Amino acid sequence: MSEHDAVEVISAKRDRQELSDSQIDWVIAAYTRGEVADEQMSALAMAILLNGMDRREIARWTAAMIASGERMDFSSLSRPTADKHSTGGVGDKITLPLAPLVAACGVAVPQLSGRGLGHTGGTLDKLESIPGWRATVANQELFEQLESVGAVICAAGDELAPADKLLYALRDVTGTVEAIPLIASSIMSKKIAEGTGALVLDVKVGTGAFMKDLGSARELAETMVALGQDAGVHTVALLTDMSTPLGRTAGNAIEVAESVDVLAGGGPADVVELTLALAREMLAGAGRGDVDPADKLADGSAMDAWESMIRAQGGDPAAALPVARESHVVNAPSTGVLTRLDAMAVGLAAWRLGAGRARKEDPVQAGAGVVWHARPGDPVTEGEPLFTLLSDDEHRFARALESLDGGYDIAADASSYDPSPLVIDRIS
Amino acid sequence: MSEHDAVEVISAKRDRQELSDSQIDWVIAAYTRGEVADEQMSALAMAILLNGMDRREIARWTAAMIASGERMDFSSLSRPTADKHSTGGVGDKITLPLAPLVAACGVAVPQLSGRGLGHTGGTLDKLESIPGWRATVANQELFEQLESVGAVICAAGDELAPADKLLYALRDVTGTVEAIPLIASSIMSKKIAEGTGALVLDVKVGTGAFMKDLGSARELAETMVALGQDAGVHTVALLTDMSTPLGRTAGNAIEVAESVDVLAGGGPADVVELTLALAREMLAGAGRGDVDPADKLADGSAMDAWESMIRAQGGDPAAALPVARESHVVNAPSTGVLTRLDAMAVGLAAWRLGAGRARKEDPVQAGAGVVWHARPGDPVTEGEPLFTLLSDDEHRFARALESLDGGYDIAADASSYDPSPLVIDRIS
Repeated sequence: MSEHDAVEVISAKRDRQELSDSQIDWVIAAYTRGEVADEQMSALAMAILLNGMDRREIARWTAAMIASGERMDFSSLSRPTADKHSTGGVGDKITLPLAPLVAACGVAVPQLSGRGLGHTGGTLDKLESIPGWRATVANQELFEQLESVGAVICAAGDELAPADKLLYALRDVTGTVEAIPLIASSIMSKKIAEGTGALVLDVKVGTGAFMKDLGSARELAETMVALGQDAGVHTVALLTDMSTPLGRTAGNAIEVAESVDVLAGGGPADVVELTLALAREMLAGAGRGDVDPADKLADGSAMDAWESMIRAQGGDPAAALPVARESHVVNAPSTGVLTRLDAMAVGLAAWRLGAGRARKEDPVQAGAGVVWHARPGDPVTEGEPLFTLLSDDEHRFARALESLDGGYDIAADASSYDPSPLVIDRIS
Repeated sequence: MSEHDAVEVISAKRDRQELSDSQIDWVIAAYTRGEVADEQMSALAMAILLNGMDRREIARWTAAMIASGERMDFSSLSRPTADKHSTGGVGDKITLPLAPLVAACGVAVPQLSGRGLGHTGGTLDKLESIPGWRATVANQELFEQLESVGAVICAAGDELAPADKLLYALRDVTGTVEAIPLIASSIMSKKIAEGTGALVLDVKVGTGAFMKDLGSARELAETMVALGQDAGVHTVALLTDMSTPLGRTAGNAIEVAESVDVLAGGGPADVVELTLALAREMLAGAGRGDVDPADKLADGSAMDAWESMIRAQGGDPAAALPVARESHVVNAPSTGVLTRLDAMAVGLAAWRLGAGRARKEDPVQAGAGVVWHARPGDPVTEGEPLFTLLSDDEHRFARALESLDGGYDIAADASSYDPSPLVIDRIS
């Protein structure tokens, strides 16, 4: 493995050359072993960010990250597997109803999640607001739960793509997060190593998403779909709107409650729409496109799968969820129609209330978050509640209120309201 | 000093923004204190390499590196000061005759050198082949020797531009050496901190130089001259040819011997020409343009200054120089005219014979090197010596010979010989 050295690989990308397969394999393996230093990998990451990688390079980079660890294999299960990955948005609780719903349709969902940073907590943070629920599942339990319940949402083990774990932490402190080849390979290395047979990517675009413009979101989606296909995973992507937050809540326990509403056949229309759209893609990818997931919401079997899934990981689905100690209501300043609700403003408010974390080691508040009582297009009445802010710490309200300032518009009527579609495009 | 953070500064340059004075001051100071990590500085260096810095940014970057340490002040000396910096080339012993020559003309030369990597050893390595000579001179001795002898060539202390020392080592392992703003600020921060009143830059261009093409060399020279002028140092640059090695030797002791020949009024014509050209620039910069340095070579006063300078640092100018244990002669393969001698080929051969080092901690062989018995334009005779290779280790000859292969041309007559000027341009 000593046929290359770090300066040679860095210099090649700096000088806009394509990296060879051998260079990529070497640099990822040597970095994982600690032979390529952090300061060398960060210089390479910056060169990749600024000079790019082509499809072959990204595919090889992803394969090398997968090869740095274990790759799971679910081919011995009695049913096909499908998973979903979202690039993250405000109020994005979709995984919670989606995984048991797809399981209820006969397809197993091995959802291995990382703990990212974000406006609100991640999927694992949301589920941890359920009393007793634990995110850690051993490999043997994972297989058994997939066979018996059909869905597992748990923390990804250290053995999946360890090179990505190192590189992700490095990029976070070196200004090299915003490189599409590195974002795509990071996501896809984990999902491919996870061993799912089909994968649906929910690539968010808008103020509350990592990708603010449609062009970048489309490029990321196309890159990831190509990576999945190259690796033999049936992959499609939906480009979905994240200029408005999803549902009516952004937080942890309050998003669990909203997800349970969806599983009970209710819930906000946009959350139901996106859950069903993603479920249909997962089922089609797994060869079960004949099943209509809407039936499984209606007949209660998705709720049954949710309860089994929560119980299998020690949680009590019937237990009361944590409630924030303090709340603050923002009333509508005028009467009319809510024509805009900015996802970033809501997300930042939820984060400032304690629902998300700034550093990996920070705790999150289970009860914190924002509830909005109207969605764009809804009528509002002056003096009636528009937002409820929730936190264990009343000192957090002031800065959360600041972030909501200018984050919404109320017009006299709906003539200036331009409803944008939730699912913008499909890439396969 | 906490008004900035590393990711903010890196991201600004990554996104092609100009760095503010405050960002530059902060990042250099925080890096010197160890608060900005190596992996952050290397990502920033790569962003600078690929996205550039403008004249204001480079000037501020240089000033911040100077401010990271001490700045010397020679204004109390009874004579003006002038120094020279070369970007490095094969057979470039010019500092050795130049410093005592300029001292003999009444201008003090405080030449504080680093120990770089290179085809041959650096100036300090060459002088260390003189029995007894030491490179380390305390500050008090430095002032006294400048007053009494007029010239000091010694190792730069750790107190000069410590930020540059850290950054130079980092760039060496992260593929970020080749950034003109960083090269220029590295050289100029040390030379400005050194406290010289006038500075002449010998910017080499050609196969044996760091800058292979005239455009890059000119850009580097112009950048450095502007930095010097902005800092109040009278600075000019000569662009000089390094497609052919200087003189007739490349090594350590053998280059000292050649330098002594020059000081004795002899020596190769090109070495004499460049030494006098640089001396005239240094004298003019120091306000002593009335003195003709050629007179000081002819009357022996430059040689006197050399001997005083060597003795002041413990060396014996009359002692025999070390001789390599082994030698190997390459005879001319045909009769005619030497029309090309490639500097890179000769430099690589000298390096492989043991005259230079690959890593800072490597030793160099005092006696190793290459002697060429003809220069381009000279007649050669088949079977007569063309090169003499010198090393303490006979096993090194084979690879040195390989590097000379194809490194020279012999033609039937001089019609295909195109003598290029040694001094290509002057930038002030």
